[in-house]
Amino acid sequence: MGEGTRIAHGGDLDAARRLFPAGPEPWVDLSTGINPVPYPCPPLEASAFTRLPSAAELTALRNAAADAYGADPATVAAAPGTQILIETLPRLRARSRVAVLSPTYAEHAAAWTRGGHHVVAVADLSGAEGCDVVVVVNPNNPDGRIVPAGDLLATAHALGRRGGLLVVDEAFADFEPAGSLCAEVGPGLVVLRSFGKTYGLAGLRLGFALAEPALALRIAEALGPWAVAGPALAIGRTALRDRSWREAARAARAADAARLDRMIGRAGGVVVGGTSLFRTADFEDGPGVFRRLGEAGIYVRRFEAMPHRLRFGLPADRGEWCRLSRILR
Amino acid sequence: MGEGTRIAHGGDLDAARRLFPAGPEPWVDLSTGINPVPYPCPPLEASAFTRLPSAAELTALRNAAADAYGADPATVAAAPGTQILIETLPRLRARSRVAVLSPTYAEHAAAWTRGGHHVVAVADLSGAEGCDVVVVVNPNNPDGRIVPAGDLLATAHALGRRGGLLVVDEAFADFEPAGSLCAEVGPGLVVLRSFGKTYGLAGLRLGFALAEPALALRIAEALGPWAVAGPALAIGRTALRDRSWREAARAARAADAARLDRMIGRAGGVVVGGTSLFRTADFEDGPGVFRRLGEAGIYVRRFEAMPHRLRFGLPADRGEWCRLSRILR
Repeated sequence: MGEGTRIAHGGDLDAARRLFPAGPEPWVDLSTGINPVPYPCPPLEASAFTRLPSAAELTALRNAAADAYGADPATVAAAPGTQILIETLPRLRARSRVAVLSPTYAEHAAAWTRGGHHVVAVADLSGAEGCDVVVVVNPNNPDGRIVPAGDLLATAHALGRRGGLLVVDEAFADFEPAGSLCAEVGPGLVVLRSFGKTYGLAGLRLGFALAEPALALRIAEALGPWAVAGPALAIGRTALRDRSWREAARAARAADAARLDRMIGRAGGVVVGGTSLFRTADFEDGPGVFRRLGEAGIYVRRFEAMPHRLRFGLPADRGEWCRLSRILR
Repeated sequence: MGEGTRIAHGGDLDAARRLFPAGPEPWVDLSTGINPVPYPCPPLEASAFTRLPSAAELTALRNAAADAYGADPATVAAAPGTQILIETLPRLRARSRVAVLSPTYAEHAAAWTRGGHHVVAVADLSGAEGCDVVVVVNPNNPDGRIVPAGDLLATAHALGRRGGLLVVDEAFADFEPAGSLCAEVGPGLVVLRSFGKTYGLAGLRLGFALAEPALALRIAEALGPWAVAGPALAIGRTALRDRSWREAARAARAADAARLDRMIGRAGGVVVGGTSLFRTADFEDGPGVFRRLGEAGIYVRRFEAMPHRLRFGLPADRGEWCRLSRILR
């Protein structure tokens, strides 16, 4: 049996070790867009592990998420990671024609296809005409493309009027200035938010769907009671309420991203986009750069269909920056 | 918005506090069938929280589960709790006629109904004739009824021959002598196993489906990559490999169950069944016993349709046994 899907993803250093058996340990993992400086987790009470998560804890988490995202708590459904929401949405709709703004995070198209829908890849919103469901990752992964909020809202309203749905995956929106649609959800619009990337806690598995209350309830029902684990409830609630940490992290990661852009530029790369948590660049010899990095124990994300393109997550500390700098020059 | 479902469950002390505002703290929660003496968790590395769970970690967990359940690793799909598997199975089948051996854990019938299937409650396997899917909780919750493995296997084979499916939920099988079907999965048979109840770690969210490899893969795909959180991968793997803890816990909980039966008997209750993790008893004045316990800060599980019936989880320690004993006499 495989591990659930064959879509290539970053974050698996065992794959890096197989590719570069001589790569020195410890590896520098730049293959994801996860904040390398995690939220300082408060100590967990034993009951977070031992007890069934309570309704009150879930309510507190949803309230904290609503506050952080500027939304109504009644529109928030919590899940063990955004990925499972991506898998769930296609099962809540009758067979639909689905447009995915592409290229983008590959799990969206895969999940709608698995759900029995007809999926087309489109380059922009105008290509999605006639579709019942439109999926936009905003800002986009891996190129950081931003679709203006006004265009998305117009699309959502048009879709909502005829029973359609716009899915906006704001996985990388927390640190970006672009307008979130979390406060605008209603008929025809669902927004996904990821917790683990911003807070550097991808192992915790926590994500949210924001939708009109009836759809938010259907999503929560599809996941069943106790979908979010005790540690995620406790840490998520505290972290989402911590505005000062988020503001400081936003500034620090933006500075990191600018530094990474300069480093990539010195190495002859052309940054084509990204967010404060990852930078995507084209190189004349992408495979060569990927190999030089790998042989030095630095794992970045490559793309099968675009060999010149590499995506860089942010180094975690001075040591990692130094190792990257020695190769990118 | 509600909390995902309106089915009543144990384990929510806030509900107990609302029912008995004068109940003394700390509450004794006997409303679940969760082992009150949890597995002593090893210290978690920070990476369990910060990193995306890796394919190798998932493989190690599946191997440990296969070992613990006496099954082939290729038949094991891991999930963030059994509940989400109960929600997922109905979505993997075309509209079916589903028989649920009842009364039992209510989420099975609810999930198949939500999935668009036609669900009937039946008293035994003979009542399930003509159905495509049969669901049996074995041993049953709340009455501990055990359907012999041979009868289940015969049913599974008959269903498998015509594309049907027997779902055996072995949530409470770990500590019981009854034969598990984990080693027998194949066409027509899927088995669910719960981690949190046995190991007293319900907040961790971990459960397994065992099925023929093609179905196990479909289940894993429906949950998507990284379905199981890092803490659950790390703790689950260690705990499932710890045979000596499990054997000691099995003996200790069996002794607890016997002690609880004696206590219930002294209070005039008639134990109608259960497992080593909970005992179910009928009382002449069930509501009165429920109220006396609640007013003393002890929360047990009652059943709306059967007011004479109460389910008791196991007290955790000497103090909890004493408090229970003061009421049950």
